[in-house]
Parts: sequence; C-alpha cells; structure tokens
Amino acid sequence: MDLKRYIRTVPDFPMAGIQFRDITTLLKDKDAYHELIDRMVGLLEGKVIDLVIGPEARGFVLGAAVAYALCAGFIVARKPGKLPAKTTRYSYGLEYGTDVLEVHEDAIKPGQKVAFVDDLLATGGTALATIKLAEQSGGEIVAVRFAIELAAMNGREAIKSYDVKSVMEF
Amino acid sequence: MDLKRYIRTVPDFPMAGIQFRDITTLLKDKDAYHELIDRMVGLLEGKVIDLVIGPEARGFVLGAAVAYALCAGFIVARKPGKLPAKTTRYSYGLEYGTDVLEVHEDAIKPGQKVAFVDDLLATGGTALATIKLAEQSGGEIVAVRFAIELAAMNGREAIKSYDVKSVMEF
Repeated sequence: MDLKRYIRTVPDFPMAGIQFRDITTLLKDKDAYHELIDRMVGLLEGKVIDLVIGPEARGFVLGAAVAYALCAGFIVARKPGKLPAKTTRYSYGLEYGTDVLEVHEDAIKPGQKVAFVDDLLATGGTALATIKLAEQSGGEIVAVRFAIELAAMNGREAIKSYDVKSVMEF
Repeated sequence: MDLKRYIRTVPDFPMAGIQFRDITTLLKDKDAYHELIDRMVGLLEGKVIDLVIGPEARGFVLGAAVAYALCAGFIVARKPGKLPAKTTRYSYGLEYGTDVLEVHEDAIKPGQKVAFVDDLLATGGTALATIKLAEQSGGEIVAVRFAIELAAMNGREAIKSYDVKSVMEF
C-alpha cells in the first residue's frame, strides 16, 4: 500500500512558500490509517516500551493509537496551561516560531522506557523538546518515530543521538 | 478493573470551583488505558462505523485509538486556523467560554456513518458542535461516546436525540 498517495500537499500553509503535508486525508481512510499505525508499530519491533509520548496536537492521534496497539501507556506533551496538575516545561524553537511544551511532573517514573511518536519530522524542534521533557522526568527515550519525514529540513541532525525512523519521506 | 480510581481530581482547574477530572493518570497506565479503549469499543458493538470523529485536543487521544481498534477512519475537529485545506466551521458555547471548531470540507463523504468520541461530557457543547460539523458534511452520527460523564452538568440534554453512552460517571 502506497501511503504517500494518501497525503495531501497544501501549498503556502501556514505561510507562503511552505508545502504543507496534510495527514488528515490519510487518517480518514480506514485502510491507510490502520496500515500507518501498523507500520509505526513495526518500526518499534523488538523494543521494550512502557510509554509512548506524543506532542500536542497531531502527535496525540498517532501516539495514542500506537500506544494502544503496543499495550503501552500514553503521555501527552501539551501547550502551556492545558495540564491541570504540577508540570515540568521546556521552551524550544520550531519550524514556524517558538513554543513551550509541558508534561505532568509525575507522568513518567524514573527508568521507564519511552517511545516518542509524532506525525512529522521537520526541524526536529518539537521532537527534541518532548524528548527533553521525558528525560527531565527520568524517562529513557528508546525510539523516535514519525509518520512523515521532510528530509530537506534535516531534522535528524537535532535528534541524531536517538534511534530515529519514519514511515514516509518527502 | 475500577477505571475511576485512575482518574485524578484536580480542584479549582481551570478556575475556582471546578473539580477537574484528569484523565492523564489513566492514560499513562498501560492496563487502564487499554481497558478504557476496549470498553469504549464495547459500547459501539453492533454498530457499523466508517469514521470516528474527535474534537481537539483530548478527543484526538481516545478517538484515534478507538478508530484504530474499530478499523475505522479518523477525523479531527480542530480549533480555527489549524487545518490546511478548505473547512466548514461551527461556533458554540462550552463549559468555560465560547469556541469554534472546524473540519475539512471533504473529511466526510455523504452517508458515512460516524461515531463521536471524546474524553468528557460536561455541558455537551463541544460534542454538539462536532456532531453538527459532521452532519453539515453529510455524515450520519450513529453513536456519541465519552470516557467520563459529569452527570450533574446534564450535558445529555444538549445531545438527547443521539445514542449517548459513557464508560464512567462522576
């Protein structure tokens, strides 16, 4: 199944010159969606994973489904002010500006093995911030997985010390 | 398994007097998370479902996992400006203010059977807005499912013409 043909390319979103890779056209197709999650799970084969962490908001979609398929727990990394209990935070630069992500302080127990999952690897900023949050909490990042990798943006450089894999490359 | 004991109650979030039911403490427990998704899927037994729709952002977590488990497609209902292609929108009042949700115009094909999934039924405003968006797109809402229902807020009233069920009640 050629998953790339389910991705819609939207020119000039969110700003002029950006070719946005839209995953919603894949998610709405039941066969393509199931295949994508199964391939992401396949890229984690042989790993012991206690928790999946996904950044707000598209990382919630793939992260939650991968966590369910793996029988792992799921952790949300959220924008400031969204989590109700005590949090730890990390500021970072991302493709189109800067941002802050938070996780609950008690989200991860020291030594738990954590897989990061998101839809898109661009600059790697969001991934690195989420990874740092997991590590601040005592987690060990054992895998970093994306549905789509924008190879020209070289986001792998930011996270090169981790085990990084993607299902599709543009 | 008593799933309610995995829910954390945070007083005075997001404002004084609100007892916030925090689902993150359930999501991070692999057994409780798997059990919750399986119970939500159990509440959909016997239904034909083409698509699951979940509202931003916590609805992405449970919606995506339920869609994967059902082998259905998944549709995101997002805050304004997040979706890259042409959208249809709906304004609504919610528990703590007002908001707008959007779906892509081509997200749902006319006649597709859609299950709404979210973490929490409070006033029912977010659910009703998402349902209206799905219907505007030609979808048929065949089920409305929540992890948690705040019975005292009587959100069922807003969506009483639909088949509504929840896994937990507070």
